[in-house]
Amino acid sequence: MRILTLLFCLFISNSINAQDEKTLRSIYDLALTKSEAYENLRDLCKNIGARLSGSAEADSAVVWGTKVLQELDLDTVYLQEITVPHWERGRREKAYFYNEKGKNTLDVCALGGSVSTGMNQFIKGEVIEVYSLDEVNALQDSVVKGKVIFFNRPMDPKKISTFSAYGSCVDQRYSGAVEAAKKGAIAVVVRSMNVRLDDFPHTGSMGYELGTDSIPAFAISTNGADYLSENIKRFKGLELSLKSYCKTYPDKISYNVIGEMKGSKYPDEYITVGGHLDSWDLGEGAQDDGAGIVQSIDVLHLFKLMDIKPKHTLRVVLFMNEENGNRGGLHYAEKAATENEKHLMALESDRGGFSPRGFSINGSKKQFEDIKKWTGLFEPYGIHEFKMGFAGVDINPLKDDKICLIGLSPDSQRYFDHHHSDNDVFEEVNKRELELGTASMASLIFLIDKYWIY
Amino acid sequence: MRILTLLFCLFISNSINAQDEKTLRSIYDLALTKSEAYENLRDLCKNIGARLSGSAEADSAVVWGTKVLQELDLDTVYLQEITVPHWERGRREKAYFYNEKGKNTLDVCALGGSVSTGMNQFIKGEVIEVYSLDEVNALQDSVVKGKVIFFNRPMDPKKISTFSAYGSCVDQRYSGAVEAAKKGAIAVVVRSMNVRLDDFPHTGSMGYELGTDSIPAFAISTNGADYLSENIKRFKGLELSLKSYCKTYPDKISYNVIGEMKGSKYPDEYITVGGHLDSWDLGEGAQDDGAGIVQSIDVLHLFKLMDIKPKHTLRVVLFMNEENGNRGGLHYAEKAATENEKHLMALESDRGGFSPRGFSINGSKKQFEDIKKWTGLFEPYGIHEFKMGFAGVDINPLKDDKICLIGLSPDSQRYFDHHHSDNDVFEEVNKRELELGTASMASLIFLIDKYWIY
Repeated sequence: MRILTLLFCLFISNSINAQDEKTLRSIYDLALTKSEAYENLRDLCKNIGARLSGSAEADSAVVWGTKVLQELDLDTVYLQEITVPHWERGRREKAYFYNEKGKNTLDVCALGGSVSTGMNQFIKGEVIEVYSLDEVNALQDSVVKGKVIFFNRPMDPKKISTFSAYGSCVDQRYSGAVEAAKKGAIAVVVRSMNVRLDDFPHTGSMGYELGTDSIPAFAISTNGADYLSENIKRFKGLELSLKSYCKTYPDKISYNVIGEMKGSKYPDEYITVGGHLDSWDLGEGAQDDGAGIVQSIDVLHLFKLMDIKPKHTLRVVLFMNEENGNRGGLHYAEKAATENEKHLMALESDRGGFSPRGFSINGSKKQFEDIKKWTGLFEPYGIHEFKMGFAGVDINPLKDDKICLIGLSPDSQRYFDHHHSDNDVFEEVNKRELELGTASMASLIFLIDKYWIY
Repeated sequence: MRILTLLFCLFISNSINAQDEKTLRSIYDLALTKSEAYENLRDLCKNIGARLSGSAEADSAVVWGTKVLQELDLDTVYLQEITVPHWERGRREKAYFYNEKGKNTLDVCALGGSVSTGMNQFIKGEVIEVYSLDEVNALQDSVVKGKVIFFNRPMDPKKISTFSAYGSCVDQRYSGAVEAAKKGAIAVVVRSMNVRLDDFPHTGSMGYELGTDSIPAFAISTNGADYLSENIKRFKGLELSLKSYCKTYPDKISYNVIGEMKGSKYPDEYITVGGHLDSWDLGEGAQDDGAGIVQSIDVLHLFKLMDIKPKHTLRVVLFMNEENGNRGGLHYAEKAATENEKHLMALESDRGGFSPRGFSINGSKKQFEDIKKWTGLFEPYGIHEFKMGFAGVDINPLKDDKICLIGLSPDSQRYFDHHHSDNDVFEEVNKRELELGTASMASLIFLIDKYWIY
């Protein structure tokens, strides 16, 4: 009798796995043949384009997101009001210096949130090249006063994950202006967060500090940084002229865009999937994070196509303002807390639409182990990397001792070729890679919804 | 005493692993900082470009390869003479049809080895669209006679490996002309082997059969194929005009280019690493297979930099004529056999310079299991896929019951966006992805050389 029971259990267990295998196969098949992600991305990138918080394009993106979700025939689609920063670049920046060949212009852009160089005028100062914040801190005030500090530490090419290389380098961009201003610098120029050598300057968020002068901050392309560095070594006292037009305006009203499929068994428990709808103002916000937006939407589209009715309420959230404030992510978590919502899991895609390789999991040891048991189900699709790690900026404020936060991990090698630059355009996203990411997200959500309880 | 011995053994075993971990880390570090692969690729693609067997550019590539290997200060660099086919495209092909809007031109190219449409003249025939060789075989001769057969079965997007999708589709390209000619067709047009929709026609090898008419064969871009298909459905009897200028010339002399680092312990036993030096005549042969060439060369460069002296003789082979004859691969294997060379392992890179994911292994079960034991060493570098499978066209003739053939397996999603088309250019290869492939190849060769005996 016990043997029969055991056999029966084995049968059930095997049949469940075979059924899950079949479901995942269907999810991938549909993603590779019926996905709307790529055409949605084309629409978002080509008809709206870059959409920095507070811009008219960000407003259009909210309308766009609402419409796309409404067309999916979800149970509900609504907006969550937030206030967002409103910074504008204005005209494109200028930078030049003179050497024996004459005038040399450099590819630069203002960092996001920077003050301008003033009413339509250049500022000019001798350039001091440094490789770290510590190096600036160690300089005497008299050396820095009136100078332009040029942070030129490259991303470490030896790090296999370019996100690790970014993480160990981005302090120059975020805090460079504050540390340089404390010593009396008039501006900072920061080597773009890009491993590749090319001509694109890459913007990104930076901060100022109360009590410290706000000085203009620029990013310079990696080629430009190398060229400037070479010239500084050749010409002692080389002076750089810089001009920017950017300005911060009063905060504006904006929105997270949310769509829901009501849970069939646990309607008051939530699984969130999302990315961020805003982007920097250069390029088209294709990899960062148009890809995550259209993938998240497409997860629900695939569920609809397959007639999968989730047990838990499945929410897609198009977060606003990840790039320069994370107001959308913070508000979403605050609201979830004040309304005592039970959040089982949140999955974010914000590392580009590249070929997916796995997931980065910020949850309990048990949640991590439970997910790793599904490794075999994902193996046929090249999904091998299940690692504990950071999941995503937008969903991070949801963190508590119950929720499992998960980030899609695509191949990272080319991400920073595009990130926050004119090179982040639709043409650089591969349709199949995007779709495989969607299928991986949908598959993991399917399994968690099926097997996990709050 | 036994416990001490055990501890000692454990220590040895751990220290070996720790040493190997350290060596692999050094290999990857050097590949990501001191590799010459990318600049070699730029040189090969931009200063020579496409290099079809028999062309002046292929001759230049032989000179180039010899020079690059000589600069590595290897123990010996030499050429292996072979004869190769010599086919030339001549001027770019033309195709058009008329519909209600007037004349429509299509993006086509001759398949490699095709006969031309004749002395500077168009041929014209009604188009019959089919999806397989079987479908043509089932048609009555009277239906096919004088017509143009259009093979339009797409690569299956549901296959995760695009090489699988290619394998199940390429019969149309290779055998389409023969099967159509048997039924009296005057030409064939084959949908390009490309999953993506774009305007590039993709060439590739095709065959004729003694006793069957040789009819002109064309590839058409995927967008062109869809457009033609749509028009065939709208206009019964739609006629297509085609023109090509290609011609086959007498065989020419060419060469495999070979460099060796003499084995310190087993100089008469060989490890081969290589790719193919020839390419199709469209684009620049960057992914196919400039990438494999510069990676293979760079494996020896890294060994030199690290002062690794292989136990077995390490041969880099730049094979000639993979694309339309594999004369280089066949000759290399024949010569190895007649000289009774002992070949331990051969590794080929011919799937593009994309982010590496693993290896495809054509060896014994034991060899496969031995390699899989190193999975942990490769895990930090994102190398997860160790699978039994085909290794490479150039090295395949070496197969016997001793040798282990191995192919580098990069991510395949974008490979056929480039393959055999004007889109296979240097700019489409990412430096880091290329270097990670080199490091993965060098690491596996290092381990096999260290631990395996013939």
